[in-house]
Formats: sequence, C-alpha cells, structure tokens
Amino acid sequence: MPDHNPAPHPTKHGAPSLSPPDAGAVLDLFRRVRRETEELAAPLSPEDQTVQSMPDASPAKWHRAHTTWFFETFVLAPHLAGYAIFDPAFGYVFNSYYEAVGPRHPRPSRGMLSRPGVAEVAAYRAHVDAAMERLLAAGDEAVAALAVMGLHHEQQHQELLLTDIKHAFSLSPLHPAYLPPPAPPSASATPMGWWLAEGGIHTVGYEPSGAALDFAFDNEGPRHEVLLRDHALADRPVSNGEFRAFMEDGGYRKPALWLSEGWALAQSAGWEAPGYWQRLDGEWHVMTLHGLMPVHDDEPVAHVSFYEAAAYAEWAGKRLPTEFEWEVAAQRHAGTGQPAGGARPHPRPLLTGIRQDVWEWTASPYSPYPGYRPQPGALGEYNGKFMINQMVLRGRSCATAEGHDRPSYRNFFPPQARWQFSGFRLAEDA
Amino acid sequence: MPDHNPAPHPTKHGAPSLSPPDAGAVLDLFRRVRRETEELAAPLSPEDQTVQSMPDASPAKWHRAHTTWFFETFVLAPHLAGYAIFDPAFGYVFNSYYEAVGPRHPRPSRGMLSRPGVAEVAAYRAHVDAAMERLLAAGDEAVAALAVMGLHHEQQHQELLLTDIKHAFSLSPLHPAYLPPPAPPSASATPMGWWLAEGGIHTVGYEPSGAALDFAFDNEGPRHEVLLRDHALADRPVSNGEFRAFMEDGGYRKPALWLSEGWALAQSAGWEAPGYWQRLDGEWHVMTLHGLMPVHDDEPVAHVSFYEAAAYAEWAGKRLPTEFEWEVAAQRHAGTGQPAGGARPHPRPLLTGIRQDVWEWTASPYSPYPGYRPQPGALGEYNGKFMINQMVLRGRSCATAEGHDRPSYRNFFPPQARWQFSGFRLAEDA
Amino acid sequence: MPDHNPAPHPTKHGAPSLSPPDAGAVLDLFRRVRRETEELAAPLSPEDQTVQSMPDASPAKWHRAHTTWFFETFVLAPHLAGYAIFDPAFGYVFNSYYEAVGPRHPRPSRGMLSRPGVAEVAAYRAHVDAAMERLLAAGDEAVAALAVMGLHHEQQHQELLLTDIKHAFSLSPLHPAYLPPPAPPSASATPMGWWLAEGGIHTVGYEPSGAALDFAFDNEGPRHEVLLRDHALADRPVSNGEFRAFMEDGGYRKPALWLSEGWALAQSAGWEAPGYWQRLDGEWHVMTLHGLMPVHDDEPVAHVSFYEAAAYAEWAGKRLPTEFEWEVAAQRHAGTGQPAGGARPHPRPLLTGIRQDVWEWTASPYSPYPGYRPQPGALGEYNGKFMINQMVLRGRSCATAEGHDRPSYRNFFPPQARWQFSGFRLAEDA
Amino acid sequence: MPDHNPAPHPTKHGAPSLSPPDAGAVLDLFRRVRRETEELAAPLSPEDQTVQSMPDASPAKWHRAHTTWFFETFVLAPHLAGYAIFDPAFGYVFNSYYEAVGPRHPRPSRGMLSRPGVAEVAAYRAHVDAAMERLLAAGDEAVAALAVMGLHHEQQHQELLLTDIKHAFSLSPLHPAYLPPPAPPSASATPMGWWLAEGGIHTVGYEPSGAALDFAFDNEGPRHEVLLRDHALADRPVSNGEFRAFMEDGGYRKPALWLSEGWALAQSAGWEAPGYWQRLDGEWHVMTLHGLMPVHDDEPVAHVSFYEAAAYAEWAGKRLPTEFEWEVAAQRHAGTGQPAGGARPHPRPLLTGIRQDVWEWTASPYSPYPGYRPQPGALGEYNGKFMINQMVLRGRSCATAEGHDRPSYRNFFPPQARWQFSGFRLAEDA
Repeated sequence: MPDHNPAPHPTKHGAPSLSPPDAGAVLDLFRRVRRETEELAAPLSPEDQTVQSMPDASPAKWHRAHTTWFFETFVLAPHLAGYAIFDPAFGYVFNSYYEAVGPRHPRPSRGMLSRPGVAEVAAYRAHVDAAMERLLAAGDEAVAALAVMGLHHEQQHQELLLTDIKHAFSLSPLHPAYLPPPAPPSASATPMGWWLAEGGIHTVGYEPSGAALDFAFDNEGPRHEVLLRDHALADRPVSNGEFRAFMEDGGYRKPALWLSEGWALAQSAGWEAPGYWQRLDGEWHVMTLHGLMPVHDDEPVAHVSFYEAAAYAEWAGKRLPTEFEWEVAAQRHAGTGQPAGGARPHPRPLLTGIRQDVWEWTASPYSPYPGYRPQPGALGEYNGKFMINQMVLRGRSCATAEGHDRPSYRNFFPPQARWQFSGFRLAEDA
Repeated sequence: MPDHNPAPHPTKHGAPSLSPPDAGAVLDLFRRVRRETEELAAPLSPEDQTVQSMPDASPAKWHRAHTTWFFETFVLAPHLAGYAIFDPAFGYVFNSYYEAVGPRHPRPSRGMLSRPGVAEVAAYRAHVDAAMERLLAAGDEAVAALAVMGLHHEQQHQELLLTDIKHAFSLSPLHPAYLPPPAPPSASATPMGWWLAEGGIHTVGYEPSGAALDFAFDNEGPRHEVLLRDHALADRPVSNGEFRAFMEDGGYRKPALWLSEGWALAQSAGWEAPGYWQRLDGEWHVMTLHGLMPVHDDEPVAHVSFYEAAAYAEWAGKRLPTEFEWEVAAQRHAGTGQPAGGARPHPRPLLTGIRQDVWEWTASPYSPYPGYRPQPGALGEYNGKFMINQMVLRGRSCATAEGHDRPSYRNFFPPQARWQFSGFRLAEDA
Repeated sequence: MPDHNPAPHPTKHGAPSLSPPDAGAVLDLFRRVRRETEELAAPLSPEDQTVQSMPDASPAKWHRAHTTWFFETFVLAPHLAGYAIFDPAFGYVFNSYYEAVGPRHPRPSRGMLSRPGVAEVAAYRAHVDAAMERLLAAGDEAVAALAVMGLHHEQQHQELLLTDIKHAFSLSPLHPAYLPPPAPPSASATPMGWWLAEGGIHTVGYEPSGAALDFAFDNEGPRHEVLLRDHALADRPVSNGEFRAFMEDGGYRKPALWLSEGWALAQSAGWEAPGYWQRLDGEWHVMTLHGLMPVHDDEPVAHVSFYEAAAYAEWAGKRLPTEFEWEVAAQRHAGTGQPAGGARPHPRPLLTGIRQDVWEWTASPYSPYPGYRPQPGALGEYNGKFMINQMVLRGRSCATAEGHDRPSYRNFFPPQARWQFSGFRLAEDA
Repeated sequence: MPDHNPAPHPTKHGAPSLSPPDAGAVLDLFRRVRRETEELAAPLSPEDQTVQSMPDASPAKWHRAHTTWFFETFVLAPHLAGYAIFDPAFGYVFNSYYEAVGPRHPRPSRGMLSRPGVAEVAAYRAHVDAAMERLLAAGDEAVAALAVMGLHHEQQHQELLLTDIKHAFSLSPLHPAYLPPPAPPSASATPMGWWLAEGGIHTVGYEPSGAALDFAFDNEGPRHEVLLRDHALADRPVSNGEFRAFMEDGGYRKPALWLSEGWALAQSAGWEAPGYWQRLDGEWHVMTLHGLMPVHDDEPVAHVSFYEAAAYAEWAGKRLPTEFEWEVAAQRHAGTGQPAGGARPHPRPLLTGIRQDVWEWTASPYSPYPGYRPQPGALGEYNGKFMINQMVLRGRSCATAEGHDRPSYRNFFPPQARWQFSGFRLAEDA
C-alpha cells in the first residue's frame, strides 16, 4: 500500500499506454478523493490524529499531509509557475521514502511530531488544493496524468489511515470506537464452492480500457503470458467460523503446519488467534473500528498473516492460489461478490464471488513482471525497490476506496503483517 | 522527580514529625498548584500534549491526569464518602508504578494513547478538584497532610511536564517554541569563587520548621549526623563558557577523564556536547523551550549527564561535592544566588550563591539514610525502591515550582540522564 | 544448504521416482563422504572446531556430530535392531531444527558447548560408522535410500563447515589460515559473452537418470513446464574486476540502484565492498581460507548478498536470470566451465561456462514447484518450511562436494546472506 | 574482580605507603601464583578453554593469556632491556580495557577467537615467565612492586576463571563437572547469632603491615575515619535453608520487598530461585563445578544478585550492612569462620565467623574514598573508572586465591550480577 508502493504506470515505460485523462473528469476526481480523505479523518480528534502505534503505521494527520506533499512536490512545484511552497520544512517531515527528493524524518518517529497540528495540516491541504484547482484548470495532459496518480496514491493512504488508527485504538485499554457500531449483520456466509479452471497459457497484467481516468500502477505490467495448470479456486475466502475450526483443532500448536519463520514468530509473539482477537469470559471478541465486538462466524477471517493463511491451507489439505490463478478468476468472475459502495470500517459477511471485504494473500512472492523496467526520476526510483521479502495480495478490502481495485491490482506486504484487512482464499490442483 | 520518587515524609515513619497543616492554607495551596499545572499546559496544543518522545518522558496530558488520579486514588477514594470514581479505566491508564494499586499501562506506551483527550482530562481535573474542595473544607488533618503530599507530587510533575515537552520539541525539525523567546540576558556570570568549609560532624536531613504546610519527602530523613572533611565548594555552578573550554580541550575525546560506562555511552551515542546543543554554521546553538538559540556563555551548563559532570571535574583537577557537603553549604549560604519567582522555561545567567537555575549532580549515590524505613501501604511501597543505580542531585532548576526546593531536598536520576536541567558545581579537598 | 534445507526427494512423494541404489555403491559412497568430512576438519584444532561466530554458522565439531546424529536418528534407530544410542543427550544437542524429533539446543548457543569435545565427537562418528557398515551390508533398499540422503545432507554440511570457519577466522585480528596459500593463479578470466536463448515452454526439475545413487532433494521436483521469454544469459559470472568498476563508480553510494531493504542494510552495516574485503594501504584485500590475500580481478566476485547482485545488475543495465533460465542453460551447456575436482578453499579464475566456483543468485524467490507436497514424518516436516523470504541460488561453489551439484539443484539463502561463496551472472531480455 | 578492577595501591598516590617487597619472596610468590593458574586450568580441555558464555565472562585461555599480557605490557616491556614481545597482535587480543594502551578486541567476541590455542597460550606463558624470572632476579624494587600487583591481578582472574567456566557449564544440557564431586558435607550450619557494635568514629581502609609482599589495591585507601551508628551484625551469612524459607513464603512474588529495577529484572528473567538452581522432580538442585547436585541447606546461599539480597533483608525485617560496618567487624573478628586453604570449587557449610566461602553484598555503592586520586598512566587510568552503578561486596569466596583477601578488600559488581559466588549477611540498627 502507499507507503511502500510502486509509482503509477507511466505511459512511456513498460506495458500498456494509458488513455489521456479528461480535464474535467480529473478535477471531479480530485475533489472527490480529497474530500473523502477529510471525511475519513473527521471522526478523529487532534490527539487521535497524532499517535503512531508502531513503525509500520503513521499518524492520521501525517497521512493527510503526506498525500498533500505528494501533489506539492511532484505536481505543483515542477508544473505550476510561481507556486509558493507552503513550508519548506515539510519536505523533510512528509517525505516517506523518496531518496532522490532528499533526506527525511525517520519513519518510526512520525508519532513524535506534534507540529504541524491538525489545523495547520488542514491549511496545508487547502493551500495545495487551491493551487491544484488552478493547475488542473489549464488542462495539461501530463499534469492530469500526474494528478490521477497522486489521487490513487492518496486512496492507498485512505486505507492506511483506517488500518493505522485501528491498530492504535487496539492498544488502548479503553477500546475506543472510530464509529459507533452498526446494526449486527443478519446475513450468513454462503457455503464455500469451487471454480474449476483449465490450465494453459493465459494473459495477465493491466490492459488499458481506453476510458478516461484509466489508470494502473506500473507493477501491474507489462501485460504478459503465464502458464497455469488445471486447478480449482474457492469461490469465496475463508470465514471466521472456518478459521475457528483450525484453532480448535490446535492449528496454532502444530509446528508441522507452519513455515519455519512463521512458527518461530507465532511462538515468540504468543499468537493463538488472528490479530485483534481476544477472549473475554470464554468468548472470542475482536477489536474493530466499531470498538470491541463478538466474533461473527460469517465474516471473512481478517488480520491474519501470510504464515497463518499458509498454515490453514496446509491444515485443510489445500494450498493458496498464485496471484495469476486469482487474476484469471477475477477476469472470469467479474461482478460477483460484494456490491461496491466505498470504504467502510468493517468487513461484511461473505457472499459467493470475487469481490470481498478482505485482501487475499496469494502464494506469489512480489517480483517484477518480465520486461518490467523502473521509471526514471524520483517517482520511479522506488518502483522495484520493494520487490523482496513480500507476498502479493489480491482483491480489495472493506477499507479500499471506491474505484481503487481492479483484477490486475497487486498489493503486497511482508508475510508477517497482520494490521491490514488481510484474509485468504483456498485453491487446489485439479 | 515525581515519576520515580519517594512518598512524602509521614509523621509516624522515620525522621522528624511534620506540623499539622492549616485547612485554609491547604485549600489555598491546592488551588494555586492545580492552577499552575494548567497554566503550564496552556501553551500546548492537544497534539503537543499527546506525544511521548522516549520511555522516560510522559505526555503533558498524562501528567495532568496522573496527578489528578493521585488525589482520586490516595485521598478521595479512601476519605470522601460517596465519591464517584470518574472513570474506572483511568486507574489502569494513569497509575505510574504503584504495584500495590494494581496493574498498569506500560510506561513506554503512554504516547500511544490518544484517549482520553485533553478535553476529557480537563473534565477529570474539574471533577476531582470539586471533590477535593468539599473534602478539604471538612478540615481533617490526615486528609490535609495527604493533600499537601499530593501537591508536592504535582509540583514534581510540573517540572517534568516542561522537561518532557522540551525533549519532544527537540526531536522536531521544526524547532517548535513552547513560549516566545525573551529579551536576551544582559547579565554576566560572576567569577567562580570558593566557600571553605571545616570538616567534622554535621547534621543533615530534614528538620521540621513548625510552620503550616511544612513538608518533606521521606527520603530526606531521618535527620542524622555525618562526618565531613575540610573542603572547598565552588560558590556557583559551572557555566556554558567554562564547559566550552573543556570541549575545546578535547574533553569528549579523552577516555582517561571518563568513567568507563560514561565513555562507552558517549561513544555509542556520539556525544560531543551537552544535550540539545548543535552546531549551526560553526556556532553552537541550543534547543530551548524558546526554540533554537545561540549558546550563552554566562548561563549554567545544563542537560549534562553525571558522566559529563564527573569528566569535567576530572579535567579541572577538582571533584564533585558529596550531597552532604552541598547540604551544609545550603544551610550556611541560604538566601544567596538567584531570586525566587516560580518555574521558568530557561536558566538565568549565573549569580554567586546556592540558589541556581540548574539541578546539581553530586558525587553521592542515592542511598537510604541510616534508620530509614519504608512507609507501609501503597504510598510507601516504593519509598526505597528507586535507591539503586541513581545519583543524587541537589538544589533546584529554573523549572522547579516555587516553594518546592529546600536544603534537604534529594532529587535523583540515573547517571546517564540528560533531559533534566542538570548541571553541577565543583568541590575540592582543603 | 543443510541446516535450512529440504529433505531428499522421496520415491513416493511428488515428482520423479529415483532408482534403487546399489548396496555396494552406497557403502563406497558412505565411506568416501564420511572420510571427506574428517579430512575437511583435519586442519582445524579443537579450539577452531568449537567456535561459533554468528547464529547462522555452526562449530565444525557440531557439523561433524550433527551429520552423525542424522544417520543415528533417521537410519540406525528405526532400522538397525539392537542399535545402542551413543548418548541420549546428543539428541537434544545435535538436532538442528526437526520439530517432530523433539526440543533442541538453541541454535545461537551452539558455540557455548565445549562438550562433547572433538575426541568424543570422533568416537561418536566411529560408533555410528560401524553400525552403518553393518546395516548397509544387509542391502535393504529403503535403508540405502535413506543413507544416500544422509550423505547428501552431510555434503551440504561439508560446505558449511568451510564457510562457517571462514567467517570465524575473518573475525580474528590474527587472520588465521585454514590452509597455506597456493601458488597465485596465473589464468585470466575469459571475456564475458552471451548465450542467446529462445523463449517458449521448457521443462525443468529433476529427471531421474536411472543410474545407481541417483538422487535429488524434493524441492527439485515435480518436474514441470515453464514458460520462458527470449533472453540472453552471460556465459560466466561477474568477476572481481568487473565488480570493482561498480564500486569505483559509486555503486555503494547510489540508492537508486538498490532494493529498499538492501540499501537500508548496506547503510546500517557500512557495506562498501563484498564480504571479507578490506582495504590495506590503499589496496583491496580479501580474507580467504588461505588468510588475507590481495583481491584478484580474474576471480568471480564472491560473498555478495542478493542485494549487491541486484544493484550491480541495475547499474549494468541488465538483470539477474530467473532460476529457470539458468537451469535451461545448464541443460544446454553441460560440461562447460571449470573442471570438477572436489571441494577447494577458494574460487579459481573464471572460465567461460556454466560450472563455476561460486553459487549464483537468481531473480527467483524460493517457492514450491507446482504440485509439490511435503513428505510425511520428521524428514518431510520441514520440506516446505523454508520457502519464504529466501532467494534461489543455482550452480555450485568451490566448497561444494564433488558430485553434489546438478542442473536442477536449488540452493537458497535469505537475500542479505554474504558468508557463502555467492556470486552472480547477468541476463537480459532479448 | 580483575577485569573491571582497580590498579594496585601505589606508594606515591593516596593512602598508605606499602613496604618494599623482598626480591626472593616475590619470585616465590610469582612461581606459586603462576603455577596455581595453570593448575586451575588443567581440568579443562582446549574446547572448554575456548568458550565464552556471556559478555561478562571470558574464556579460560583468555584469562591465562591476559594475565600474561599484563606482565608483558606493564612489567617486561618497560623494564627488561631487550625483551622481545611474544606476538605484537596479542596486544590487541588480550588487552581487557586499558584505553591508554590502545584499541582492543571487543569483549563480547572473546569467544570467537580460536587462535591462539591453548598450546600457544602455554608457550606465551613460558616465554613471559622466563623473562620475568630474569627480571625479578635483578632485584629492582619498583619492578618487584609491579610484579606483586600483577600477581594480585592474576589471582583475581583465577577466581573469574572458575566462575566463568561454571557459567559456561551451566548452559550445557550435559551438566559437565569441572571436578568430580567430593564427599557430601557432614557439617551443619551454626545457628545465626549477632555481633553488637557501638557507633562512633572508626577508621577504615588499608593499613600497611610492614610485612614483605604487603599489598592492597588503591581503591582500599586512603585510610580514613567513618561515623557508624550502634548496630548488630549477623555472625555468619544467610544459608540456603534460610533463603528457601524466603522463597517458600513467596519472596519472589511480592513486589513490595524489591527494589524497582530488581523486580522488573526478576520478572523479565523469570527468576524464582538463586542462580544455577533448578527443580528436578520437585527437589531443588544446583549446578556446581562438581556438576548438578541437590541443594544443601547448610551451605551459604550463593549466586544471588544484590536485588535478591536486599529483598531477603526486607522480608526478614533487617537490612544489609554497610561496607564499613563489615570492615570494622572484620577487624574485630579476625580469624573467625572458615579455615584457609586455597581456592575450591564449592562453598563449605557455614561456620560462625567473618571468613566465609561467599562474597557478601553490602548496602554500599562503590564510590571513591575521600582523598582518592587516580594513579597516572595506563595502570591508573581506570582506577576510578568503574565507580558507578556497582555495589561493594566484602569478604572472599571459596574461589578466592589464598592470601588474596583482607578486611579492607573491596570487591564490586553491578547489582544484577549473579555468576559470582555472591551471598550476603544481615544487619540491623541497635
């Protein structure tokens, strides 16, 4: 996700050329995405927006400012004549990891910074928004493409804003709620079925649609052929109830089910359930963005690491799908699963289909596609630089912004990560 | 200082009995001290009050709430019939280290807690203040004694509130100022002179004055005799200018001057100047509560560790005084030095005398006085429990609350601590 | 390599069935491999054989005993009636990571154990060898297969014995030599050429030859088809001289060339050259098993991490090959490169060809082949358990035992590892 | 003890002048002490002598070589014309902490060095011994004084050699024995009685006896007056049986008994008994230099930290004595307690008296005596440099060399240390 993520897919580098975005449509998108960020932050107090609960997470106000800095640095400064940098010190404070842009505040210390406060961050956003409106009105195509990229970048941070504050709240003995709990879900998960898929050569990777605002990150290309084998893919992810069976069968106590590093980590960290689960009076509860709630069996299991996903699959006598098996299924079963509707704080009960409310760990390490070449300059400097020691996740989660997911989308996290809405789906050889 | 500090001196345990406090005077003191805490916090935004920059430091709102919890737990709950606890969860969140009171939130994670926010902390303070007013009005003597103790406890946290936010601000590339810079000091440090003192048996430790509101912490007693040798004590602490000479003579590069642990620490931490000093364009500057300022030679050197104080003394061919040499001098030279006037953000230039604007490291490890016995119960549980691996500091600092210092006062910190306003004064054998 | 490695390829599980080994041939192989281990340890004193220089490395006497314990535990105990365990405590001390066999001595503490000493380890080896001779004489096929597996396991530890003592010696200011230096190499590296390869479907993975003693580890199967693209592969690895050009061009100072984790590691560890290199009087030297020697430009660069290999490739405008590109080339160019001749302490100068004296990092993360299933029981428990956060290396090194390499062999190490003889070869898209 | 210890008491610096040693007596002492070191090392194999089980401990062969380096560096090199340094690299390897002598091998890595081996260390010792014999024969008084100092230094390392190998063996699942177990002790501890002592001014510190070979370390002076209070001192240390009562009363589970740092450490390290104790089949055993043995109630409790000693005293309603209370008792009760007889591997049962088989923690932090000044040069560089964060132990232990203890002797360790033979004795105010 954003903070460790590839640059957008440039028209000139690597795979498919993207369509020139329409100026009015870009401006509309700009206003919508920027407003959605503020709406997501609105329930959080200045204090809430300041805390950083671990090095992997960032304060909410940092997300709001960093996404703004991105527009200022990569769009306004090079393209808007006479643009006045809001505060030169912000370049140090809000650079995430762009080596070519210069030195930066150490990531684990983002929570040490009380200044700028939320009011000043709001002023920063307004300053940049105003300048962006002026710039976008000029209708330059290259600028529009950069702006679209910045908006997809911001959508990634919208998701992180939610997962990061969830992690912070989970450490509080007060169990704060980001939003009040909704009505309890009435639906039941559908039974798990299987999609059979024939092997052979398939084509994967992003394919431009020709539509305005067409976009993909450059790690989704070049589009290329892959060789698959006959296999079956589950038609929905694993549920809490199914994962509970693994737990009750001693899944967390059987080293033979686990990758060696996963077992060592589970032992040292004392894992005996997914992230955020805790037992209260003999019943499993889970810390959510609605506060502490009982575990619902019909929801997808979430906040599991790759290690837990792989151990479950071993226990079940199945395996995890490769990212390409998943992508081919997503091409074929487009439109199935959960209805769309924007980021929400908690996963809905499982429905049959490809679109679900959790990211899905795959068996694929995060590697460059054949022919992938980094984009030149600061934005491209890091394109491949995270392609090590990470696993690909496919799909989307409840916290993913509307319009941000697509079949070719490659999310990635290290196998031990649990603070994302990460679940998984099973596969098996046919 | 508060967070690691002794309970007040009880009338029944150990040394001198203290006078029964006058009810009206206690109420006045209560209102004054509680108000001063809020005044100290006033320049800080909600975001400022939330950050914790290291495990030794605490967020400003935590200080405000913890001192309030102290009254609630040790005064109101046991003594005010029908008192309603503001929020039972606060007992977990705002207990600093009282094992007998129960488990508590881990100290290094105080900065992870955005809730309760500053508004709720203010409400907590108002709730407890109102109850304390009712309780104090009843004029119970034991309650009054506990309240006075709670106020001295709160004064210690007032000082920590300042030193902790100074540390947090020092980590910011924005160099925030707690208060705007004052007019530059015009005074020059007086030349260093020496007070000769004859050896022999002297009496040290707290002696009750008989006055209302008389108070001391129990580590200041029992009053007892000590055997001193003929010696001379500098009539003021070492200045920035004098410390600069040590630096320029390679003081930070000569292991022979240093205690072994101090040398290892200085090397690994890269110390080459006192805490908060940094060189800008070839000139030494220092981060202060007024922001970044040039170093003034006439101010006392501050934010040095015991190791640096001891290395300087070795370099100067002198030594640090024992805490008893200091105390006897303080008895004799009472009233000399800086005029009183409440906590201030920065040390004033040095004047001849005992009262200065920095705490003074002594050569004395922090040990119990002969005959010292811990007070029973939660308040006494910890009386001796910090008497290891710490050195005694005497005097006061610019950030010490008015009325909080006295000749017998024993402050203590581990020898590596630098975030307090800690300086030192020289001594030598006669 | 052994300590973190897959079990041998079982006839019943997964890919190709292996031929039944010939009893006499197995006994010959057993004697040869066991003797070679002792010959490799012979130049090491009891003190040398005791030290462990990092958690990843093991003492030489531990390697000698662990390989013996492997035969005792997996061959003798289950298959030789009346076999007397040499010392039951050894099961705890010399188990490397087999969870199913029981608890074990912590890996980082292997160097804490002075007992058993080298004499007792020799007695242990003799005890087990005698029993193995008796057992192998009976000619049981399943036993023979297990024995062959144990010998390949021991060959892996032979290589580790050399790389581990090299690491230990590298920490000594005395620069000890394992063996006296040989005559300096006279040969020059051949110029780097390119092998063009057409894309399409190729078959990779181990294919049984039908010969006696046929063997492969189970991670080399199942044999399966892969889809390659047109590409070119360098006809030899990168040399020290070529790597020096990268260094002189600032390769270690340009973050844009590096993976993010590699850059962070190189900065924190202060890397500015391959492992074991040090500059003496302005000239690059390298610590070898012959002691400290000048760097020879014609030798393959060794002791580089995956990160350095990837940075070099980026700098050179090329890429690393995938493990399948390498394997297909190894099928095609069999017999080229260095002549065989058993383990040696130092790489020879580069010759054109596939067989070289360094392992070659590939671009492939270490993942299971399609259809791979773990073997049941203790030996298989760990088959897949290391398939995370590791990169595949192909080929062999100077320290690899004679007969231990083959085109399908998959070595693997985490990307930061530098203590193996690890180099790399370039590739590029055609 | 040696590795962190003061230089010997120089005649010119500080306290009492020592008598000029008699040349023949020095030579005799030299031969005896050097031989005793070799006798202590004799039961240890080369492998045993190589291991380092923690940074605080050193390999046995390192002790043998370091003590030899001490003579080479401080006696032979400056005083024996034409002396040939055995191996210049040893200056780096065997310097413990003398900054003025130059850089040195990192302490935690002493166990990484297999070279020089025990045979070469023996040759080194022989080389230096021969040179020392020649030098001592010349009868120079200053040289004799330096030699005596070197021998006392070596005696300290003799004790460390035993405690360090005990620690290493304690980590082995094989429970190795340094020497075979002796006949079980038949004696019972005498009941604990009390020595009453009147307060007032007493004189402490080393007083030269005028005898040949008279010696003290410089931290034992200057001799000076101290003011004591009326008190009682136990006439023997606490026994295993008595300590067991503390354990059975929940001593390790009551935070109110403990210093705060001690409690935190006991929790994190899981302490529930003295060092080396383990429960087997419900019975307490203890790892000793004779291997694993049942705990004997009549022996002094050993391998307790200062924290445990202080917690026990709190539990018993007593306190630990100051080092001066102990020293005054040692002056008065000289000759009581255990008979002398050289270093032994295990404490004998307690007898009434001052001389016992465990070091005794006191309540005194390790500080310089009034008037103490460091000796100039390398030997004196470190005289005061360990006087921080350590507590004074008095007496001697079973492992202390014959002739090494005296009433003024000040041993010191950090309060958490448990690998020495450390016990304690109670005191109380009269």
